[in-house]
Amino acid sequence: MSEYIAPCDCRRAFISGFDGSAGTAIITEQKAAMWTDGRYFLQAAQQIDSNWTLMKMGLKDTPTQEDWLVSVLPEGSKVGVDPFIIPADQWKRISKALKSAGHVLVPVKENLIDAIWMDRPQRPCKPLMTLDLSYTGIGWKEKIAALRAKMVERKVLWLVVTALDEVSWLFNLRGSDVEYNPVFFAYAVIGTDTIRLFISGDRMADPSTREHLLLDSSLEAEFKIQVVPYESVLTELQAICVGLSPKEKVWLSDKASYALTEAIPKAHRYLTPCTPICIAKAVKNAAETEGMRRAHIKDAVALCELFNWLEKEVPKGSVTEISAADKAEEFRSQQTDFVDLSFATISSTGPNGAIIHYKPVPETNRALSGNEIYLLDSGAQYKDGTTDVTRTMHFGTPSAYEKECFTYVLKGHIAVSAAIFPNGTKGHLLDSFARSALWDCGLDYLHGTGHGVGCFLNVHEGPCGISYKTFADEPLEAGMIVSDEPGYYEDESFGIRIENVVLVIPAKTKYNFSNRGSLTFEPLTLVPIQTKMISVPLLTQKECDWVNDYHRKCREVIGAELKSQGRHEALQWLIRETEPITKMH
Amino acid sequence: MSEYIAPCDCRRAFISGFDGSAGTAIITEQKAAMWTDGRYFLQAAQQIDSNWTLMKMGLKDTPTQEDWLVSVLPEGSKVGVDPFIIPADQWKRISKALKSAGHVLVPVKENLIDAIWMDRPQRPCKPLMTLDLSYTGIGWKEKIAALRAKMVERKVLWLVVTALDEVSWLFNLRGSDVEYNPVFFAYAVIGTDTIRLFISGDRMADPSTREHLLLDSSLEAEFKIQVVPYESVLTELQAICVGLSPKEKVWLSDKASYALTEAIPKAHRYLTPCTPICIAKAVKNAAETEGMRRAHIKDAVALCELFNWLEKEVPKGSVTEISAADKAEEFRSQQTDFVDLSFATISSTGPNGAIIHYKPVPETNRALSGNEIYLLDSGAQYKDGTTDVTRTMHFGTPSAYEKECFTYVLKGHIAVSAAIFPNGTKGHLLDSFARSALWDCGLDYLHGTGHGVGCFLNVHEGPCGISYKTFADEPLEAGMIVSDEPGYYEDESFGIRIENVVLVIPAKTKYNFSNRGSLTFEPLTLVPIQTKMISVPLLTQKECDWVNDYHRKCREVIGAELKSQGRHEALQWLIRETEPITKMH
Repeated sequence: MSEYIAPCDCRRAFISGFDGSAGTAIITEQKAAMWTDGRYFLQAAQQIDSNWTLMKMGLKDTPTQEDWLVSVLPEGSKVGVDPFIIPADQWKRISKALKSAGHVLVPVKENLIDAIWMDRPQRPCKPLMTLDLSYTGIGWKEKIAALRAKMVERKVLWLVVTALDEVSWLFNLRGSDVEYNPVFFAYAVIGTDTIRLFISGDRMADPSTREHLLLDSSLEAEFKIQVVPYESVLTELQAICVGLSPKEKVWLSDKASYALTEAIPKAHRYLTPCTPICIAKAVKNAAETEGMRRAHIKDAVALCELFNWLEKEVPKGSVTEISAADKAEEFRSQQTDFVDLSFATISSTGPNGAIIHYKPVPETNRALSGNEIYLLDSGAQYKDGTTDVTRTMHFGTPSAYEKECFTYVLKGHIAVSAAIFPNGTKGHLLDSFARSALWDCGLDYLHGTGHGVGCFLNVHEGPCGISYKTFADEPLEAGMIVSDEPGYYEDESFGIRIENVVLVIPAKTKYNFSNRGSLTFEPLTLVPIQTKMISVPLLTQKECDWVNDYHRKCREVIGAELKSQGRHEALQWLIRETEPITKMH
Repeated sequence: MSEYIAPCDCRRAFISGFDGSAGTAIITEQKAAMWTDGRYFLQAAQQIDSNWTLMKMGLKDTPTQEDWLVSVLPEGSKVGVDPFIIPADQWKRISKALKSAGHVLVPVKENLIDAIWMDRPQRPCKPLMTLDLSYTGIGWKEKIAALRAKMVERKVLWLVVTALDEVSWLFNLRGSDVEYNPVFFAYAVIGTDTIRLFISGDRMADPSTREHLLLDSSLEAEFKIQVVPYESVLTELQAICVGLSPKEKVWLSDKASYALTEAIPKAHRYLTPCTPICIAKAVKNAAETEGMRRAHIKDAVALCELFNWLEKEVPKGSVTEISAADKAEEFRSQQTDFVDLSFATISSTGPNGAIIHYKPVPETNRALSGNEIYLLDSGAQYKDGTTDVTRTMHFGTPSAYEKECFTYVLKGHIAVSAAIFPNGTKGHLLDSFARSALWDCGLDYLHGTGHGVGCFLNVHEGPCGISYKTFADEPLEAGMIVSDEPGYYEDESFGIRIENVVLVIPAKTKYNFSNRGSLTFEPLTLVPIQTKMISVPLLTQKECDWVNDYHRKCREVIGAELKSQGRHEALQWLIRETEPITKMH
């Protein structure tokens, strides 16, 4: 149920051939159907064969999974699903619909795909990385203690940690079991005086991990970590629940799997949309914030090098989307504490830019040129932080229309970045600020404006964000980190997106909301925004000032770093690209 | 369960003395407690005696009703509630909480307050008013036919109409059973070929009503209205449900009472947050829109007269909040087709203006003067439309701070009124536009920005609105009518609010959202905004232009009407108040 999964979990791709990041396959004795969303209609149609029916989600006439099941199943059917890979609320919804039509949803404990998947890869079990206080700011014992205080507050005896990034954050450990997210397969169950860590293999044999977790030290009983095999989480949880007195509660995310949710008898369940770890992880402490700053400085150095290189190489005609992405990775990997990319680089030129989640492959790979807009959305994992940045540029002369669209997107980016709002405001209330300039001209983009960003953790994390979709987002707080990434996409022509990662900080206002206090954003990303793409007359004086202030900061902070790294040519590029713009009167 | 209720339904006021518009009384054998919100903490504390515990909702330590019940009840208690005055979802929530603590929630069919309320007033049964096509645009037969088409679409056999304004709208009838809302006590149950209208007394004896509803005409069987006593709705609905085949559904709002919801067996219930009548009623047709325009022109005439009168009388020191409100009613009542006010006039000066739902009473009544801001939020019911307008003014010289705050509120008002947004946008996405200028300076207001407005119906209606609270609002559509009313309130000092009723209209944009189309607002309210209160340098040129365009339209449209009504002094006032403002460069 994670955003990025290991090869052993790519069961839908195995059975259907469709390997997009989102999709659900349902197979009956007679039929097979595949649900996916608008990003993947084309790809799925190409990858699945005629045995499959493609169900295009979001289209009016597409049935829901439960409606389709009811329409095709013979009376009194059983529908099976692996209870470990379906969230409890989705189970409940489908189960209810099936039941009211006379069918029944049953958990199938042995996954049926695994039963026929002969060469299924092993579940990864890569070595762990320990993070010391200079990166995490807070030791894992202190985190556990704070967590237990929250448990006491909510009157729960146990907390089950299921999200991989929450386990990683809690123990100050990182892994590489899946791509891009530096996490490892594990669960944790925290009691008032016990800690159980469910993890496979001999990962606890590594001396530095043992030392980090104090496995061989004599310490207070309540901080003694019991290491338990990964697979035994269900039986252990069941055993815990057997011992519960009435009114004793077990805390679990409402996004946890049906298997784990069901293991806790209803009367003992304490479900919330957001675990206390999720919120603690989202509000970065001083060490994490400083780490994120360092990571973004290094990342900006790499991108200055890249853009300088592109400016020289693109005119020669030899740079493609793939080679540009590779070059970006090469420059990033030269930076201290570089670990991995934080997601698959979106390197797209011309019409490919209009495909929001484009990833270049040899069949679509396009050469960069002086005639098309180039969009690069990329990021990396450094040991001190995670980055995610999008820049859109032109290596020739952009058309007036391209500049106009770019400028509206920039106005939206600035409107969010410079917004001041009272403490307690939820991110979704800021989404329209990013669209207002586009809306005025009849343009829009069909994605949210921002997502939470982890600190050397998942590049997409909850519980906050900036989106017109009003999911249960938590109010923004100082220390939270989100992306600000409005865009505009002209089908079959070009894509524009301007993305910074921004830190929520206290704002100074004239009247300070009757001491309620206020917030604003500070960009962590410090990479020039191509001024050639800006139609300056469309900016207000305030927006001009924002651009110039931002570029001055890029020049100061990144310039100093480029200098100290001896990257003189990239420094010259940075200085050129951060020349102030002027609004004529 | 309506916003405005009849004296016979003021049971909480009878038992406790507290007569605010929102509150819930719970009485056990030993205790009595009263829940109410921040608007009424003071009033409730004054009105209830020491037998009662005041439960201040919204404060951190205030228990919910169910938590309190669980904490005070002896084991295995029964909690009774009149099932006709509690929504089904609230019943479900309380019932669940009680059950898990070993208690039970039971419906008490004979209301226990009524049993001891000796001089309880009769349920009102006022004469009905029929509306012809020139007001409604669509006859009731046509409305029923359209409704049945929606029922076929959703595969339901029956629709139960419970909201009073929905019954009124459906049959093109109006009443005066409660204050301010021109509705009457009734239910309707629409079948595929039957119409049942549940209504009390001999109201169907009136010849014009009989003719309007074609009660004595020979007409198609499916449009024959069966008139049934109001009290028999429950037994009739139960009888209908007994006759249902499996899979046959009855459509009901999920806001309906527990009594009616429970009358429909679960398998036959089709609950939605919004009935098809609710949406049809919200999207005004051409006749309704024209009626609303006429009503707002007449209303503006009355307010021009009032403000002209106030300007002359206030300096004499003889005008109070109450006499100003009375004078407003007097001027309104001079207009054609005036029926009633649409809500209790909020007439407040100085510190009273900071009380958002203030209604002047003799104990608080304050004289208007040249030293304080005056806020008037008022509206009327005309046979052709409903109005709701707020203006804030100063009869002397406003302070720089007062002007500053007023100007931020005005900027917010304009930002919403002039907003352009794609088809399908929900109102809550526009709320932050109204706050942005205030937020920049650390100011905010703690209410939503707008509500739906009925056409000669409830001044507050669903299913659309503009609020940071993301209730289940329906997307805005051309023809919907909402209010735009940001404000700012300085406790114990002053209140500012600028409110227009605005019509959702198609917008013209340069690129038209790839033919998705776009919307904006057109003000129906045409009453000058006091330019004396504006700090012009704080406005952008665009905002200045908006104010001048708006005032030009006020002068043209209302000026013509004042002239034709021979109200020359008010016309001179209007011309003075609509002088263009100029931004110095």
